[in-house]
Amino acid sequence: MINIGLIGFGNVGKSVFDIFAENGDLISNRIGQPIHIKKIAVRSIEKYSSQVPDPSLLTDSVDDILQDPDIDIVVEVMGGDQPAYNFITQALTHKKHVVTANKEVVSKHKRHFFQCAKEHGVDIYFEAAVGGGIPIIRSLKVGFSANNITAFYGIVNGTTNYILTKIQEEGKDFNTVLKTAQELGFAEADPTMDISGLDAAYKCVILAAVAFKIDVQLDSVYYEGIESISLKDIQYADELGFRIKLLAIGNRIDPDTFSLHVHPTLIPKEHPLSSVRNEFNATYIVGDQVGESMLMGKGAGGSPTASAVISDIIDISFNLSQSVSYRNLETRFSDAQVQSFDAHECQVYFRLSVKNTPGVLEQVSLQFSKHSISIEKIIQKEMIDDRADVVIITSPMSESTSRLLQENILSLDSCHQISSVLRLIKSF
Amino acid sequence: MINIGLIGFGNVGKSVFDIFAENGDLISNRIGQPIHIKKIAVRSIEKYSSQVPDPSLLTDSVDDILQDPDIDIVVEVMGGDQPAYNFITQALTHKKHVVTANKEVVSKHKRHFFQCAKEHGVDIYFEAAVGGGIPIIRSLKVGFSANNITAFYGIVNGTTNYILTKIQEEGKDFNTVLKTAQELGFAEADPTMDISGLDAAYKCVILAAVAFKIDVQLDSVYYEGIESISLKDIQYADELGFRIKLLAIGNRIDPDTFSLHVHPTLIPKEHPLSSVRNEFNATYIVGDQVGESMLMGKGAGGSPTASAVISDIIDISFNLSQSVSYRNLETRFSDAQVQSFDAHECQVYFRLSVKNTPGVLEQVSLQFSKHSISIEKIIQKEMIDDRADVVIITSPMSESTSRLLQENILSLDSCHQISSVLRLIKSF
Repeated sequence: MINIGLIGFGNVGKSVFDIFAENGDLISNRIGQPIHIKKIAVRSIEKYSSQVPDPSLLTDSVDDILQDPDIDIVVEVMGGDQPAYNFITQALTHKKHVVTANKEVVSKHKRHFFQCAKEHGVDIYFEAAVGGGIPIIRSLKVGFSANNITAFYGIVNGTTNYILTKIQEEGKDFNTVLKTAQELGFAEADPTMDISGLDAAYKCVILAAVAFKIDVQLDSVYYEGIESISLKDIQYADELGFRIKLLAIGNRIDPDTFSLHVHPTLIPKEHPLSSVRNEFNATYIVGDQVGESMLMGKGAGGSPTASAVISDIIDISFNLSQSVSYRNLETRFSDAQVQSFDAHECQVYFRLSVKNTPGVLEQVSLQFSKHSISIEKIIQKEMIDDRADVVIITSPMSESTSRLLQENILSLDSCHQISSVLRLIKSF
Repeated sequence: MINIGLIGFGNVGKSVFDIFAENGDLISNRIGQPIHIKKIAVRSIEKYSSQVPDPSLLTDSVDDILQDPDIDIVVEVMGGDQPAYNFITQALTHKKHVVTANKEVVSKHKRHFFQCAKEHGVDIYFEAAVGGGIPIIRSLKVGFSANNITAFYGIVNGTTNYILTKIQEEGKDFNTVLKTAQELGFAEADPTMDISGLDAAYKCVILAAVAFKIDVQLDSVYYEGIESISLKDIQYADELGFRIKLLAIGNRIDPDTFSLHVHPTLIPKEHPLSSVRNEFNATYIVGDQVGESMLMGKGAGGSPTASAVISDIIDISFNLSQSVSYRNLETRFSDAQVQSFDAHECQVYFRLSVKNTPGVLEQVSLQFSKHSISIEKIIQKEMIDDRADVVIITSPMSESTSRLLQENILSLDSCHQISSVLRLIKSF
């Protein structure tokens, strides 16, 4: 008999409970022994007592879980940094295996958790922290473990992918789509964490830890959100053969140097990541042996996330029958450099608003050639009064060159404004 | 120190050896102890001696591996039914863990292997047998293990996917594309096993075992190849918004009844499976909790397949440090029914060659309505002399109704021939 203690009973916690009720036999069969949820720690017993068949399952003291010698696995699904950090640390110290769905706490404290787990002879799993139901963490840890991973490109935030898809497919603007997304539950009342790219950046840190075995913090990841993505850009990109996706990108530049960044990115329409629509997530992986692979699925929501949480519980239970395998710990983080984002190079999409007078395109083009940047495509669109939109796709340039170029272009009398600057990837 | 014995040194075996040479440190680090290939069994030592740094690694007697008490893991990459079946059985009997990339032997003898492994306290892994480098087997076994899997849709044969992609994208006919595929190494000199759907059917049997926990043989799987797919059908499908893919399909019809079939299938262009091009493979999974997921990657080739073989070796090695977890055995196969393919229902695409005279469409339509089948789309194309192509997409019908309908249509004076009958799936 394996006993589980659940900390948190929100959307994911409730779904974990429901799946055990629904597929409990299947799960016990998989493991080869009975498994059940022994205790659920919540802030208010009263609030949740109607949601469980037996209210004695509930406790408002986490110690009832942490101190219970019969509990083998602690499942933390409360989210946030504190007090989750303390609860996880205590659980590990009490020699309990931990499963968490908490991207923030794993992103910040992974090294501490791994060391603490190893010290106390237990394991910590976090499949649900990135990509919801998609088995991306264990695929990187085991499925692709013969590989040096050279790059990952993740659509790891369902809210922003939903919004970008709807702007593109329904031709509506950002704010209209955001409002619908909030009504449908695909975006939070306060969507800042998703929209700003912060959520994706936390996940980028975790993917870097698992794919590259490096221990970095959020400040090593350049991130940018989708607030400034306009319907116009999405339509121009479409016309040029691209989709715009918010990607969490990790690149191995040389064996010990990495580049980590999150930003809206133009990618070719026919690329598999372009087929990832609405609230779906996906991670595209490049390994030195396996080549290119992609894992796609639902990145959020109670059931998909709980499905990942339970897969971790099952994985631990396989080992519990014997002893712990530590298969999930990264205790050999390598010392690595993260490249400054200034040095990062890629193709760029510019949308400029210029005066509709002769010679403007020449003036603009000159700025690019001064920096030895060639123009791959240039289209002029939409003349309104004396203004025209000019869309330009360039050869690769560094972030610092891009900034210089923007200054130079803005100094031109013929340029009203730079409406958009977006990064573009054609080969993965 | 973990010792491996390799049986077979073809494309995959050589790649396994090369990856150990290239990424050996990474792999040992992952496992936490040294691991190396101790012996390689080949038919002719002479033939292969130039391909290894130390020819004493080679033996022409498999017993040198099977009888060596120091060898922990036997890797079978020779392929085919016999003698692979005997070698695997003997390895398990000698209490050696087995990793195999052999779809045929796993498909046929899985129940025997699982029982034999359990009896002797060892494990057998076969990630590379389906989908090359894609971690589909372990995702079904662990990643999605909280789910009742309700369906899978696999592009599991790279040769046929390459051919279908090239017909579509380059507008060339089947035979021209097949010839190029053979020259480029994407198709065998004798491509029958791939083209006929047999290879995909073997993989369908293995996916059914892992996804549904059922033990069926090849004769439970209806299969059909791509020999009769014409450029015309691919072009008409494109016009109607579809791609044609050879899919290995498993459906859970009720808890204990399944439908298993392999055939070319029209699927919507915007479906993620449609973005799987050339030699890539992918499996689309539907779970009752996780919803829809897709895993994509390279389905064949030395390095991707060897990447999967080594992931199995690493997985076993995690357990070897302790004792065996049996996590990979299906010892609880359920007794299940496989539905007769006659009862299988889906939408159908017909291409008819008819007389170009008034009233023909009415006559044809009447045949459909007689069977209570409605026509969702009908387009008339290409009149040459007195002939016209008519393309029809119908509402769902059973295979037996489809056959009856075909007889009825053929009996019409106005119908020259039925050029194509293809199945179509819109919702997954």
